[in-house]
Amino acid sequence: MSHRRHLVAAAVLSTSLLALSAFAEQSKPTPTTQELLAKSASTEWRQPDPNNLLVMQLATGRVLIELAPDFTPLHAANIRTLVHQHYFDGLAIVRVQDNFVTQWDDPAGDEGGDPKKVRSLGNAKNTLPPEFTRPIDPKLAWTALPDGDVYAPQVGFSEGFPVARDPASGQEWLTHCYGMVGVGRDNGPETGNGSALYAVIGQAPRRLDRNLAVIGRVLEGMPLLSGLPRGTGPMGFYSQPAQRSVIQSVRLAADLPAAQRPAIEVLRTDSNTFTALIEAKRNRRDAFYAVPAGKIDLCGIDAPVREPTPASAAAHPPH
Amino acid sequence: MSHRRHLVAAAVLSTSLLALSAFAEQSKPTPTTQELLAKSASTEWRQPDPNNLLVMQLATGRVLIELAPDFTPLHAANIRTLVHQHYFDGLAIVRVQDNFVTQWDDPAGDEGGDPKKVRSLGNAKNTLPPEFTRPIDPKLAWTALPDGDVYAPQVGFSEGFPVARDPASGQEWLTHCYGMVGVGRDNGPETGNGSALYAVIGQAPRRLDRNLAVIGRVLEGMPLLSGLPRGTGPMGFYSQPAQRSVIQSVRLAADLPAAQRPAIEVLRTDSNTFTALIEAKRNRRDAFYAVPAGKIDLCGIDAPVREPTPASAAAHPPH
Repeated sequence: MSHRRHLVAAAVLSTSLLALSAFAEQSKPTPTTQELLAKSASTEWRQPDPNNLLVMQLATGRVLIELAPDFTPLHAANIRTLVHQHYFDGLAIVRVQDNFVTQWDDPAGDEGGDPKKVRSLGNAKNTLPPEFTRPIDPKLAWTALPDGDVYAPQVGFSEGFPVARDPASGQEWLTHCYGMVGVGRDNGPETGNGSALYAVIGQAPRRLDRNLAVIGRVLEGMPLLSGLPRGTGPMGFYSQPAQRSVIQSVRLAADLPAAQRPAIEVLRTDSNTFTALIEAKRNRRDAFYAVPAGKIDLCGIDAPVREPTPASAAAHPPH
Repeated sequence: MSHRRHLVAAAVLSTSLLALSAFAEQSKPTPTTQELLAKSASTEWRQPDPNNLLVMQLATGRVLIELAPDFTPLHAANIRTLVHQHYFDGLAIVRVQDNFVTQWDDPAGDEGGDPKKVRSLGNAKNTLPPEFTRPIDPKLAWTALPDGDVYAPQVGFSEGFPVARDPASGQEWLTHCYGMVGVGRDNGPETGNGSALYAVIGQAPRRLDRNLAVIGRVLEGMPLLSGLPRGTGPMGFYSQPAQRSVIQSVRLAADLPAAQRPAIEVLRTDSNTFTALIEAKRNRRDAFYAVPAGKIDLCGIDAPVREPTPASAAAHPPH
C-alpha cells in the first residue's frame, strides 16, 4: 500500500495492522457508514413526498431539494406556486461566496440588473411572514444529539432535517448546516418570498439561524452548487453575466410523469440505523482513527440518501 | 433597493429602516468587520515569517499558506526541505471531496498511479513523529473564545490559528477549521511526511482533530482550492488525470527575492481589534440581523488578512 494516500481509513483491515496498532486492544473497529447502511431495513428509508421535492436542472446535472413544510409552510407553498409557473426556468446562479453560500435568483433584480426586466412573481406572494422559527411541535419525531451545541440549548433531527430548539422560548428552527437551503431577503424580515434561494457551501453560518427562513435541504447535487468558481464581486456575486450558471428548469416532482420522478430515498432520522450512524461517527475508532472524537456536532452528520436501481440500492453516504 | 437581494446586511442604513425595525431601540448597529479593521492600529498586524510562508502557484492564481511550527515543527521543517527541493513543482491537486477536503500530492503514488514514477523525497524524511497534539505552551498568546465547543474543553486562538485545549491532559492542538491545512497519511500514525497535503473545504471535520497533523492555514487563495469540480472517484479522487490541477510551483517566501515576497499581513489574534471582531460577530445586530446569535464557534471566525498596497491597505475580511 502506498504511503500518505488516505485521509480516511481503508475499509479492509489487515491482520498486521491490527496487531501493530493500539486499536488492537479494542474488540472491533467501528462499523463504517457503508456497513451500517447495508444492514438497514427498507422500512427505515422514506421517499420524499413528491409535493416537497424540487428538481432543479442545470447544464451540469440535477439538483434535488426537499422542502420542509413542517417548518416553513408558507414559504414552501409560495415556492410551489413559483415552480408551477416555471418561474425559475432561465434564471441563474448569480452568487457564489466562498465558505458561505451559493445563491440563485432573477439577475435582473440584482444590483446592476435591469429593473424593467424583472420577472413577475405571478400568483406568488411578494412578501411572507418570516417563519424564522416555529413553536416546538411535539408531534414531530425528534432525534436528539447528545453532545450539546454552541448556539442552541438543544439540537437534533426532525423529519430528516437538522433542528435547534429552545425550550425556554418554546421555539424550534431549521439550522444553517452545509447543504441547507434558505430564502434570500432584503432588510425587512417579510421581504423574502422564495424567488431568491441560497444553499450553504461552507462552515455552517449559524448566526443566520432565526434571522432567515430555511426551506429545506439539498438531497442530491451539492457538488454542482459548491464546486463553482467563486464570484469576485461584492458578497461573492458574479461581476460578469457570463460567469453565471443558467437554471434550465425547476419542477416539482409531483408535476412530473411518475416515470420521471426521482427515485431517491432518505434514511429516516428517527430510525435505529440513523441512531447507529450517530454513534459510529461519535466513536469512530479503526485502523486510521486512533482517537475517537467522542462527540458529534449538529452539522457534522446528515441523513444519507440513496437512489435504488432495479438491481441494487447504491447508497451515497456522507463521508 | 430591490427586494430579496441581500443575505448580508447593507453597510449603509437608511433612517426609515432604523425607524421601522425593532433594532431602532438599540443604540447603534454592531460595527462591521470593515469598520473595525479600518480603525485597527498598524501594530495589530503582523507579516508572517517568510520562513513559514508557502507560495503555491496554480494556473488560476496564487495560494498562500502559513506554517505553524509552534504546533507541528517537525512537519514544518520537512515541508521546507521538500519545497527547497522544488518537490511539489509539477505535482497536482488530485482529490476534491465535497464538504471535506482538497488534497494535493504526487499522483504517481496514488491508487492507480505508477509506483515506478513516484518522486523521491530527497533529503526529506519519509516518516515523522505524529505531532497530532502538543503540551500546552503557556508562552503562546491565548485568546479564548467564551461560548464553548462541542469537541474540546477549551477553544481559542494562538499565533493566528484556531486551537483546542484539554487542561486535563495538558495537550493542545490545531483544529480542522475551514482553510486549515493537514498532512495526509496512511494508517500508521507516523506515515505522514508533508508530501501529501489537504485543505478543509467544508464543515469543519473536527473528528480529524488529534488524528492528523495540522500544519497551517491558507491565508489567501481558498477559492482556488474550494471552487474546483468535485472528484467522482472513491473519496473524491479525480478519476481522470486530465481533471487534476497542476501545481506550477511551491516556494518558501524566504527563498524568493525580497521584492517578490507576498506583502500579506495577518491581524494578530491577541490584538484588541480581533477581540472586538469576536464580540461583533457574537452580537451582530443591525438592519438585517434582528436576532444576534450571542455565540461564536471556533470555526466561525478567523484572522483577517490584508495586502497593503502603496496607496492603501485593502482588507479582505472574512464575511
